[in-house]
Order: sequence, then C-alpha cells, then structure tokens
Amino acid sequence: MCTVSTCDESTLQNVSGYHHGNLREALVAAGLAHLNASQSPDFSLRELTRQVGVSANAAYRHFASKEDLLTAMAAEGFRQLTADQATAMQVNLRVADGFLAAGRAYVLFARRHPALFRLMFSRFAASNGNEDMKAAAQMAYDGLRYSMAAVLAKSADDPQVVVSATHAWSVIHGLSHLIIDGQFDLKTADIDQLMDAVLRHGGAALG
Amino acid sequence: MCTVSTCDESTLQNVSGYHHGNLREALVAAGLAHLNASQSPDFSLRELTRQVGVSANAAYRHFASKEDLLTAMAAEGFRQLTADQATAMQVNLRVADGFLAAGRAYVLFARRHPALFRLMFSRFAASNGNEDMKAAAQMAYDGLRYSMAAVLAKSADDPQVVVSATHAWSVIHGLSHLIIDGQFDLKTADIDQLMDAVLRHGGAALG
Repeated sequence: MCTVSTCDESTLQNVSGYHHGNLREALVAAGLAHLNASQSPDFSLRELTRQVGVSANAAYRHFASKEDLLTAMAAEGFRQLTADQATAMQVNLRVADGFLAAGRAYVLFARRHPALFRLMFSRFAASNGNEDMKAAAQMAYDGLRYSMAAVLAKSADDPQVVVSATHAWSVIHGLSHLIIDGQFDLKTADIDQLMDAVLRHGGAALG
Repeated sequence: MCTVSTCDESTLQNVSGYHHGNLREALVAAGLAHLNASQSPDFSLRELTRQVGVSANAAYRHFASKEDLLTAMAAEGFRQLTADQATAMQVNLRVADGFLAAGRAYVLFARRHPALFRLMFSRFAASNGNEDMKAAAQMAYDGLRYSMAAVLAKSADDPQVVVSATHAWSVIHGLSHLIIDGQFDLKTADIDQLMDAVLRHGGAALG
C-alpha cells in the first residue's frame, strides 16, 4: 500500500472509499500518513475510519483501540528501520564501514520521520507494545548487537558486546534526539556535516 | 524557595496563600512542583495562580503566557544540571574521572526529573526559549565543551573538541532517553550497572 517513507496525504486519498481487501493494512497506512502529515499522533480512530471510508465497527475488528493502531504503526517503523540498517550494512564490504553506515541510516530515519521515531521509542510503545511490536523492536536492536559482535569478533552474548552495542545505540539515539528536537542552531548542511563527524568519531574506535 | 530536586507537592502548600515577596520565583517553584508531581506540563497558568493564591493578573506581570513560565522552568533545569555537573567535576582530581562523573550526573538528572528533562530539550524550548533560557542552556553545553577541551588539552574552539563534545553529549543524552523512555527491560539495579558500564566504555577512550 505504502511504506513508512511514502505514506503521505495522497495515501489518505488512495485509501479513501476503501471497501475490500486488507483493511488492517489500509488503517496502518492511513495512520502513518496522518503522522507524517501532521507530525502528531493526535488523531482519532473514528476520524481515520471515516477517511478510509469504513465504519468504526469494521476498524474495531482489527484494532480494539487507537493505542493498538499506534502500536502497529510503531512496529511498521521498527521493520523499516531494520530494513534501512540492513541495506546500509550490505552495501559496505568492511564491517566497520557498514556499522557506520547503519548508524547514519538510524539518524536519517529519525530526521525523516521524527514523529514516528518518537512514537516508536516512547514509554507508551515500550509499555503497551504487543508481541508483534516487541519482536520488531527486538529485531532492530539485535541487528545492532550482531553487527557489533562481528566488529569485535566476539559472541553476541559477550557482556562487552552488549555494553558496546548499548553505547553505540546511545550515540545514534542521542544524536537523533538532539537533531530532531532542534538542539543544534545550525543549517541543514552543517547538521549533516556534524552528524557525519560525530558518527566517524564514534566509529573510529571500532577500527 | 525550593530547588529543581526539592519542588514537590509540599511546595504547592507552602506557596499557597502566598501574598508578598518574589512572586515570579513562587510561580516557577509551583510549576516545577506540578511537573514533578504529575510528570506532565499539562497544567494551566490560571490553576497555578489559584494555588499560589494570587490573581491571574498578578501572574501576568511576570509571565505573559504559560509558555513563558515553562521557559523559565526549563532555564531553572539547565542551571541545576550545570550545577550538578560542576559538583561532579569538582570532587574528582583527574579530569577524565570528573568528566565521567559529570556524564553520570547528566543521566541521573534525567532519571530524577524525566518530565523536566524532556521539557528542557524539547523543540518547544529550543524554539521559544528567551535569552535567559538560552544562556542557561549554553552554560550547560559550555561546561561540557570546556571539560572536553581540558581532557584533550586543546582549545575549546578546536573542531575536534566540538565533535568530541557533541559525541559525548550524544552518548549521555541518548542513554538518558533510552532509560527514561523505558527501552531497557531491566530492574533499577541492572539499569544502574548498564549506565555505569556504558559511561565507562565511553570514558575509556578519554584515558
């Protein structure tokens, strides 16, 4: 229907008058389109079903509440983040280069989808996430941990790998927040440059 | 009146029936107490003035809007954060140890005052902050930058210092967010241990 990156206002038009097929997918797409357009999760499930052109009752067969829909959107976000990072890893021959590119993909994901990024890593999602969302979040984290294990040539369960992966996660997560929350009073080009310099600085220790 | 750490529900009682002296300070204290108690900035200026026991008009002489009060609260937060970090630096003889302790103080500040931390580093504060708040935020960042300059024995304006300071800031800021947003499914003691391990890992590179 659309991906995290492509769900936008035109999606809302496409799903409008929707009558058959995968309603669940249409509702997630409409939710992502709303989030992308308004950068806020403040919409009602009822409003969304009206736009998709189905009854609220039809929607409730897929999502018991708006919270359930937000959780499904967060899961979509984690799957896209994992895919972005996997792509970044694959186009680099050296593990350390791939690791750096994956970090860059993480920060770019946050910059492209700030509202979705905040939703995915919110206390709400962490405590209300269902099995699907938790598995998607775990997959994103495991990608980081297994890459770190490869960089350090150690087992993924090695305590040093866990600490190093959490450190690397903190760097990219903190940098993402500082950028999307407007903490750098810089032009976009200068933010790009600072982002690359910080990631290279962090990556330098990985050889 | 009270500090960021001590403004709580008893503060609301103390400022209640407040009639003279520093009304501005009383309103900031009441705002911090509200934020600490409810962990949400969703209160009205009118509600606050009622609790402090003054008219809304009296409050408007100090704050044109609730946004102005939130900005003053964020400035208080930055001053406390700077003080916490300065204390951490001072009790350590070695610069690198002090730097590590300052990082720990940053994450502990976020864990103790999650709602205030989010307010301070929000896009709202970054774009609506007045001169006082911006100066307080700058002071907190400069503390980090000058410490990094001391660790690296370089000028605070050296590009390497700026990148290293931003990297260190990203680590402590990201770790803070991951912890307060519930991203580690761990007990408090295990979070303490992980926090220390990640900060030591980051500090190790500083020698």
